[in-house]
Amino acid sequence: MEITRQADYAIRSMIHLAELPMNGRVSTASISEAQGIPLPFLTKVISRLATAGLVTTSRGMGGGVSLARRPEEVTLLQVVEAVDGPILLNHCLLRSGACERESFCAAHDVWSEIQERFVSELSAVTMQDLALRQARKAAGEPAHSE
Amino acid sequence: MEITRQADYAIRSMIHLAELPMNGRVSTASISEAQGIPLPFLTKVISRLATAGLVTTSRGMGGGVSLARRPEEVTLLQVVEAVDGPILLNHCLLRSGACERESFCAAHDVWSEIQERFVSELSAVTMQDLALRQARKAAGEPAHSE
Repeated sequence: MEITRQADYAIRSMIHLAELPMNGRVSTASISEAQGIPLPFLTKVISRLATAGLVTTSRGMGGGVSLARRPEEVTLLQVVEAVDGPILLNHCLLRSGACERESFCAAHDVWSEIQERFVSELSAVTMQDLALRQARKAAGEPAHSE
Repeated sequence: MEITRQADYAIRSMIHLAELPMNGRVSTASISEAQGIPLPFLTKVISRLATAGLVTTSRGMGGGVSLARRPEEVTLLQVVEAVDGPILLNHCLLRSGACERESFCAAHDVWSEIQERFVSELSAVTMQDLALRQARKAAGEPAHSE
């Protein structure tokens, strides 16, 4: 039922990038240090995020990682799915017809509804939201939902 | 992110029992056949449900499995957790202080909120709801949320 540790690392990395000034670029080494992510894991995670079009990477002097889109355009759902693949609460939801019991099973329908709401919640949170919440939290302001 | 296949089997079994007349008792063999659950898996699942106090089992002639509580008193959350353990969307939510980043990480708070709503959705669905929906579905009535 858990997201993978890699997806967690991806979220931390994306928040880190979203906190940078616009178009900011940092080295993977500095993300690794700031976010406490072992470099070999981080390299894989950044590669998945790049494949999903969420970050861009460049090599050499002045190279590094930066967001490929504005932080308000990247959702928590996109980051999790970039690493873990599509959200799937029960294997019966893999695709229509994946389970032969679909036509008569009530659990299928309930899982489908719960998954839809869950996906919608993950879609409602952007990297901008998370960066702002984190800045407020660092400043010692009381937490509140948005 | 998925519930286990065992949790899925547990849900099917509990719906099957909830569809029986009050205090109905059936053999594991008949649940296995009706629900398409291999008997060795089913035996383990029933044992977990019994440990969680959701079913009672008895041996011998007239023995079998029955619900230990009324179907409207057993939630989807209880059935899933009886088999898979507590819902945990991210390892940082394992317990307060499980993650050293909790005090400053915005993702922790967001996962905590999303998990709370998710758990609440699973708590809102009872075995009675599922049995009624299944009966309606079998009768060809249009599906609708409750």
